[in-house]
Amino acid sequence: MAFPDTVRLVEMSPRDGLQNEPGEVIATAIKTGLIDRLADCGLSHIESASFVSPKWVPQMADAAEVLAGINRKPGVCYSALTPNLKGFEGALAAGANEVAVFGAASESFTKKNINCTIAESLERFVPVVEKARKHGIPVRGYVSTVLGCPYEGEIAPDKVATVAKALYDMGCHEISLGDTIGVGTPLKAKRMLEAVAAHVPMAKLAAHFHDTYGQALANLYAVLEEGISVIDASVAGLGGCPYANGASGNVASEDVLYLLNGLGISTGVSLEKLVATGHWISQQLNRKNGSKVGLATGGQCTTPKKLGVTHEQ
Amino acid sequence: MAFPDTVRLVEMSPRDGLQNEPGEVIATAIKTGLIDRLADCGLSHIESASFVSPKWVPQMADAAEVLAGINRKPGVCYSALTPNLKGFEGALAAGANEVAVFGAASESFTKKNINCTIAESLERFVPVVEKARKHGIPVRGYVSTVLGCPYEGEIAPDKVATVAKALYDMGCHEISLGDTIGVGTPLKAKRMLEAVAAHVPMAKLAAHFHDTYGQALANLYAVLEEGISVIDASVAGLGGCPYANGASGNVASEDVLYLLNGLGISTGVSLEKLVATGHWISQQLNRKNGSKVGLATGGQCTTPKKLGVTHEQ
Repeated sequence: MAFPDTVRLVEMSPRDGLQNEPGEVIATAIKTGLIDRLADCGLSHIESASFVSPKWVPQMADAAEVLAGINRKPGVCYSALTPNLKGFEGALAAGANEVAVFGAASESFTKKNINCTIAESLERFVPVVEKARKHGIPVRGYVSTVLGCPYEGEIAPDKVATVAKALYDMGCHEISLGDTIGVGTPLKAKRMLEAVAAHVPMAKLAAHFHDTYGQALANLYAVLEEGISVIDASVAGLGGCPYANGASGNVASEDVLYLLNGLGISTGVSLEKLVATGHWISQQLNRKNGSKVGLATGGQCTTPKKLGVTHEQ
Repeated sequence: MAFPDTVRLVEMSPRDGLQNEPGEVIATAIKTGLIDRLADCGLSHIESASFVSPKWVPQMADAAEVLAGINRKPGVCYSALTPNLKGFEGALAAGANEVAVFGAASESFTKKNINCTIAESLERFVPVVEKARKHGIPVRGYVSTVLGCPYEGEIAPDKVATVAKALYDMGCHEISLGDTIGVGTPLKAKRMLEAVAAHVPMAKLAAHFHDTYGQALANLYAVLEEGISVIDASVAGLGGCPYANGASGNVASEDVLYLLNGLGISTGVSLEKLVATGHWISQQLNRKNGSKVGLATGGQCTTPKKLGVTHEQ
């Protein structure tokens, strides 16, 4: 066991969260309100928008307005997803501090999603990474389906390692390993991470685990034991699973922070403020708070009730 | 790491689950239907009822009818909670295969709940355990608030060890360690378990972790690393937290089983049948399924949707 002293939380809710919320397009003011509140919690890295075609992702059509509308806090990285050069140019013009490209470890997933091979998808990122380098913008690389694919099931750890290494070698400064459908369990997560860490330094890796099968915190605990020190999460568990109605997607940031606090790992993030932010956005979106810490600490009933079971007859 | 090869799941839903469900008293036929379905899943130990005063716990008033109404499957232990001699006699008459007594590691909790000290509460179990021994009925001992108390907060691991040892020395064959309010985190759970295991053999200990703060699976993974081999859980996560409205109580059996399957630990329980049972009881009670595995595998949408984020512009 080699727990890190410090973990950097990368907040996904404004992008990976809101993008996958069902229902109407969310007002720009709610998005900027969320981002500003997250920065006030002490989060230093907030993925704030996605510069993709509004035809495909109408929820992210106001990406530039969002980045223009936030009150930037010094030291906070406001990043954006940029799948191609056009997206990168939008993000650059909007003042994103970091951009991200999004690959996958599954050939079937890549084929179904963008109709090309993994190798072809990686080639498309090269101009993005090159242009970002010219502008001094760091690029984050996502690898999705690292613990399973909705189309082909099991994914070999070596396949994940190959894609992660390709993104790292291309110039991505950090590789986020995504259990996109949340099917992983701890030993599988460890084996995958070990395979990747043989090619990319552990300090350059992030865990992006979804909670669809309820395993995210156990998996995070297991990879923390391996030394992972960057974790992606989403306040209030914003963002459902696109593959199962009513199921969870992103792991809730509050629950991850509660875990880290319990392990004595520092993050610089206020749990109290994060819980309040989770309640706020849940109310704005009229959805149930997906954080168990949020539900446990924010319920209406604060007066303990008796358990009853041990009462005398 | 010394993961056990096999884990025995102790199913809590008919007792600790239904008892803490809000709303009306549940029909006996639903309770017996649940228990029979659970046995059909391959569960070998089902806590089926509580012989307590119907004044205090009206939900358990039909304990004798429940035990009379089930279709007993050979090899399955149908246990009942019996806080005192009167309860034991009821359970004995109803043919419970095992009984359980319920102590706590917190003086404040014990005082508030049954208005006596821990030492006094343990004394009250002595006649139950003695009479059970005479009848050849094994007694399980619960220790609640092992990782925190709603009234006094932190609980010292030594305090848990003292109570667990007292129950073990008294004649309880198994001690179930309950994180009643679900506030624990993995290292705390490990330290508590290590303190107890210094006095009671690991093979005689069970983990009963609630998921109120979303930490139950991470905590279970941590104590599995220590060698725990008995886990209490409740199908569909039945049973809310009595201390926070809308918050979770028992960890969902399906989610625990998914974890164990992923770790290669055998249980003899069918995940498919358990998921079906979780859906069945959730429908009967008109509540949301509290198992993430249940929600992920039982949703209406089985056709994968595209993630969208990598589409070309």
